[in-house]
Amino acid sequence: MREISSKDNKIFRLCEQLAHKKYRDKLDLYLIEGENLLEEAVKNKADIKTVLARPDYGGGFFGMEDKAFFLSEKLFDQLSQTETSQGIMAIVEKHRISRDRFLKKDGGNFVVLDRLQDPGNIGTILRTADAAGYRLAIVMKGTADVFSPKVVRAATGSLFRMPVVFMDSVGELMEFTRAAGKKLVATCFDTDRYYYDENLRENIALIIGNEGNGISQELIDGSDLKIKIPMHGSIESLNASVAAGILMYEAVRP
Amino acid sequence: MREISSKDNKIFRLCEQLAHKKYRDKLDLYLIEGENLLEEAVKNKADIKTVLARPDYGGGFFGMEDKAFFLSEKLFDQLSQTETSQGIMAIVEKHRISRDRFLKKDGGNFVVLDRLQDPGNIGTILRTADAAGYRLAIVMKGTADVFSPKVVRAATGSLFRMPVVFMDSVGELMEFTRAAGKKLVATCFDTDRYYYDENLRENIALIIGNEGNGISQELIDGSDLKIKIPMHGSIESLNASVAAGILMYEAVRP
Repeated sequence: MREISSKDNKIFRLCEQLAHKKYRDKLDLYLIEGENLLEEAVKNKADIKTVLARPDYGGGFFGMEDKAFFLSEKLFDQLSQTETSQGIMAIVEKHRISRDRFLKKDGGNFVVLDRLQDPGNIGTILRTADAAGYRLAIVMKGTADVFSPKVVRAATGSLFRMPVVFMDSVGELMEFTRAAGKKLVATCFDTDRYYYDENLRENIALIIGNEGNGISQELIDGSDLKIKIPMHGSIESLNASVAAGILMYEAVRP
Repeated sequence: MREISSKDNKIFRLCEQLAHKKYRDKLDLYLIEGENLLEEAVKNKADIKTVLARPDYGGGFFGMEDKAFFLSEKLFDQLSQTETSQGIMAIVEKHRISRDRFLKKDGGNFVVLDRLQDPGNIGTILRTADAAGYRLAIVMKGTADVFSPKVVRAATGSLFRMPVVFMDSVGELMEFTRAAGKKLVATCFDTDRYYYDENLRENIALIIGNEGNGISQELIDGSDLKIKIPMHGSIESLNASVAAGILMYEAVRP
């Protein structure tokens, strides 16, 4: 296998660029790291451009040997975003999604990320949405990058399965969810309805709000159903990905 | 207010020590950081020993002025564990819990942390347990420190309310939960029972397992009820704090 050992190598420099959102957006590429994620990417037929292994990597390549290079330990460790790297990463092309295929009335649910900032939360919500059988993730403008290394890691492969589309405005979101026949559901304080009394089983677009500030008022005002999660004692809110899990798993109950 | 500006000051040195588990264990003290946490600590009558503010701190002291010192910016930033510090921290004594008060048969639920490692997960589970009305958190040997700065932050004040006890062995846990009249509940793959078909409303001790390896086999074998959370597609597991949230919120449903 060919080895890259110069920091001027153009594949290495591309990887350096992909640490930044600006280049991930421009090039429609992102980095994945770890043997499990590489295996998931292959299994889910993600478009893998290049695989980079540290010379001491002892794991699998899952049929991607043709696209693989060794990267000198020094250069690899410079790129690695994990504390204890397994010694394998890959450049993957973002999956392009046609929105139109989600306009058919098939009962499926969407999750809407409204300006979430914590990459761990974003990845965990994608993972949970995948597990709960949700069909689509809609990412509102102002949300942290869904393709950052921390999101990719927390999503544990769900990014290869869960389609993601991006929307700029509440108007665009409302138009789309209406055309798809989804009820727009928001959690907020100002409601008498508890989540377990409502039908969250199908045909909903569930909004998860920003960690500190919740869902934007414009989105709450535009939603079709406002619900709340009861909380004991003096606690004010749940972690965003926990709240998302509780609500999305309503679709899984018989 | 008095100001500390020497790195040899004994309060400053105590704070440096409390960054390490060894000293938190030995001294039964821990650090909290941020205005919200200080307010929560005061509200919940936590035993606050000392408050330390950066000279530019503009927030509240909540009646703790007598115990407050300014700490020079340089020293404060050396201790601060957050990226954008609010400029306030405090030394708090760990709350001592008598196990006996949990032996009465009152219907309350316990959550058992079985060797969880991620501080964000541990803190989030304590926060969710608090919100779901759980009465007690049992921390098994091998779990990461519940009083580390990251856990304290993720728990958003629940550590001041949720009693925590520590156990060394599965035998000790089983003896305690049995005496308290709790059914020991484990999630695992090897079961036909789905969580939503079982009664998780009261009198349970719900075990949440290690992020990578789940619950120890010894604990699974010793549990009274084995349940699973269904998952779509090829996904293998949920994030530990999301799974905990879904299961603990079964107690909140009417």
